[in-house]
Formats: sequence, structure tokens, C-alpha cells
Amino acid sequence: MPQEDRITVHWLNFSRAQRILWLLDELNLSYDLKVYERTKEYRAPKELEQVHPLGKSPVVEITKPDGEVIQLAESGWIVQYLIDNYDTEGKLKPATIQDSNKVNYFLHYSEGTFQPLLVGLLVNQMATKVPPFPANWIAGAVVKGINAKYYGPELEKNLKYLNGIAAAQHSNGSKYLVGNKLSGADIILSFPIVSIFTTGRGLRPSVVDEFPELHKYYQNLSQEKSLKNANEKIAQYERNPLKL
Amino acid sequence: MPQEDRITVHWLNFSRAQRILWLLDELNLSYDLKVYERTKEYRAPKELEQVHPLGKSPVVEITKPDGEVIQLAESGWIVQYLIDNYDTEGKLKPATIQDSNKVNYFLHYSEGTFQPLLVGLLVNQMATKVPPFPANWIAGAVVKGINAKYYGPELEKNLKYLNGIAAAQHSNGSKYLVGNKLSGADIILSFPIVSIFTTGRGLRPSVVDEFPELHKYYQNLSQEKSLKNANEKIAQYERNPLKL
Repeated sequence: MPQEDRITVHWLNFSRAQRILWLLDELNLSYDLKVYERTKEYRAPKELEQVHPLGKSPVVEITKPDGEVIQLAESGWIVQYLIDNYDTEGKLKPATIQDSNKVNYFLHYSEGTFQPLLVGLLVNQMATKVPPFPANWIAGAVVKGINAKYYGPELEKNLKYLNGIAAAQHSNGSKYLVGNKLSGADIILSFPIVSIFTTGRGLRPSVVDEFPELHKYYQNLSQEKSLKNANEKIAQYERNPLKL
Repeated sequence: MPQEDRITVHWLNFSRAQRILWLLDELNLSYDLKVYERTKEYRAPKELEQVHPLGKSPVVEITKPDGEVIQLAESGWIVQYLIDNYDTEGKLKPATIQDSNKVNYFLHYSEGTFQPLLVGLLVNQMATKVPPFPANWIAGAVVKGINAKYYGPELEKNLKYLNGIAAAQHSNGSKYLVGNKLSGADIILSFPIVSIFTTGRGLRPSVVDEFPELHKYYQNLSQEKSLKNANEKIAQYERNPLKL
């Protein structure tokens, strides 16, 4: 059946928005991509505020054949909505009600618990590099203290938790987070998990050795065809990784 | 119909968990309350890790008549699950599909965008009061810088956004966030919005004057009967507000 709804993705480079492109590819949906580039301060540009008052990305706009426009924001909700409404073949649909409950939990967990820790670390990391801080080494010491007291232990706890889930899944012969198939849980958690293994936000280089099952999960994830397609699509806008 | 499922709420004092008690009262559900008290460092006690590996609150456990136990974590998901499964009279059910989409968005927005800003501010506030920071006044200056650069402007943007939504709703004659009735959106956002007006996390005393529609919304919210019931229930565990 030809796709009746028109889909537009407002997409910010180096952002959580890339996983929405993965999902759209997975669901065989075509879409228009509107690209926004980060400012020198690594913030979203003002133009995004014309799309949504909070100026965040991603925002997905769906135009129905009758002209109705549905605007979606918040990645967890976007993933939920797109799967509920467009996964007509049940490709990503969990096999049981128990699995469905788990996926819904992860859609909230990813953005409500795990990702905020990474944002907190990123904000602190930027704090040591951007004026008007009194002196970089002092800012560094304070930030290190905050990380050691809160963000570090919390991140550690979450990585252990996810590593344990990956271990249990691997021993059941599954390379996915829930059941035996790809789901919204893998897609929503891909961004923070990829961040852990590709940026300094794992907090230490030994993260690969300390969380081997999560690393194996990440390696399997990287082989997903639609994720690769999405990455190829966005490579042109992210050729030079931002160094922070 | 008598309630067949047994519900247990693992509840931490001074936490987001209080709104789940509101929702349970709203849905006329009875439940067992297990109380956990914060440590001197304002953290959750270790016992909570025996309930859920992340040691967070709230966690809701539902025991079905056949013995199956469903464990729910993440407040947005808990609210969604309880309403989907126990709002048999449609008391909180949105009137239209558009309103339902809005409520689902807010369930993600509250915990994925708004609440993390308040947590970030709380973590920074604690940083200036707890060793091992180099010196409190220096930590204070750095933290003030981080707040001024990131958390302050982001919080401002979100308060304007919510104030605008409240204004539009008030001018439509509604005292709720979505449509003309109480919904999961009001319940999930009650905790961060109450925090804004009752703790220093609004960042300045003028928050009442600057966001009058949001304040009016908050005042109306405070009059909700089931919220009052929940507050009375927990008053015994929160008699002495923690000063931070």
C-alpha cells in the first residue's frame, strides 16, 4: 500500500534524532529530512524554536491526507507513536504482553533515567571549557567532584543494570533487549548506549572490559541494516565529529 | 467490583512517588504502602535496590489472582499502565484521540525533559554543601556558572512553555493541561510544577509573578481532592521538610 501520510523529520546533527531515522527506515517509511546544525556552543539553533517552542530535536510532523498535521516530540513518544501507527506487519511488535510492557518501560527509562545522566555529564564537561568560569582548573575540580558524587555512581549502576540485561538476553540466545526480536527498546536505547562506547561519557576507557555483555550488545546493534542506512544518510552532515 | 489485583507501592519520602498515590486514590484502588526513608545525603536507601536493581522509587508491584507479579518502574510508564488497566470508568480517559496523544506526549515530556532540569539543579545545589569540594564558595561560583549557562535558561524556556499552555487552557475555561478534564498529564507534571513553586528550584522568588498562569494552574491543582488525600497520607512521613 502506498504511504498516504507525509512525514517530515526536523533533525539536529549529533543528536538523539538519528535513531528516529533508523526506525523510519525499519518501517519502510519515506520522509522529508529538515537539517539543523548545532551552534558553536553545541546548542540547537534558534530556528528549531519555530518548529516547537522548546527548540528541541527531533520533532516529527505527520500530515494526513485530509490536511491534519500531527506534531510529535519526545523521542520515547515518537518511537511509540510510529510503531503503534505504522508497524502494520508487526515487525517490531513484541511477541507477548509481558514483552510489550518491558518495551514500554524502556521507552520511558531511556529518556527519563539513563539519558539525563549523560546530559548531566555533557553539561559539566562543557562547563570546564566555556567561559565565564572562574578558572578552568578550578571548574574542573568542582565538576570532577560533582561527577564523583552523583553522575559517576549513577552511571555505573545503570551500566551494570544494562550489562546484566544484555547478559541474560545473550544466554537466552537473543541479541536484543526484549524477547527475541528487535523492538522500540533497542532503538530508543541505541543512542545513549552508542554514546557510552564512542564518547568519553563512559567516564573511563575500561568501559569495554567492565561491561562486556553490553559491549557485545552494542556491537550487534551496530550491524543492524536500517541503523547503517540511517548512519549513511546522516554521515554527510556529521563528517567532522564535534570534539568536546 | 471488588479489586482482584493486589497493589504494592514502594515509596520514598520527598520523592516523585507521591503522585502515584494521588493516581491510585483517583482510581479508587487500594494498595499496600512500603515506606523508605532518604539517607542523610538525601539519597535513596540501599534497601530499595532489593526491590529494583536501580534502587529507585516509585516501584509498583501488581500481584494478579493467579500469582503473576508485574513490576512497574518509571513514573511515566506507571501512570500510563495504571490508567490503561484500571481506569474502567474512563474517569481520566481523554475525550479525543488528539487529547490522548497530548497526554502521552506529556507523560514522556515530564520525565524526559522537565524533571531532569530540576534534578540537575538539585545535584548542583547539593554540590555546594557536601564535601569533598575544594571550597564551598568556589564550588558555589562554578555551580552558579553552570546553572546560568545551561539549567537556568532551559528551565526558563520550559516554564514559559508550560505557562503558555496553562494560559491557553484557562482561556478555554479549563483548569487542566489537556482538554477539559483531569488526565495523566496533570498527575505526572504535578511533582515538578509543585517543586517549582515550593522549593528554591524555580531559581528566583519572582517565579509566581513571572509565570502567573502556571501559578494559577498549580493553585487549582492543589485543590484536587485525591491529591489532598495523598498528601494527608504521606504527611506523617514528611512532617519535617528536608532543608537543602
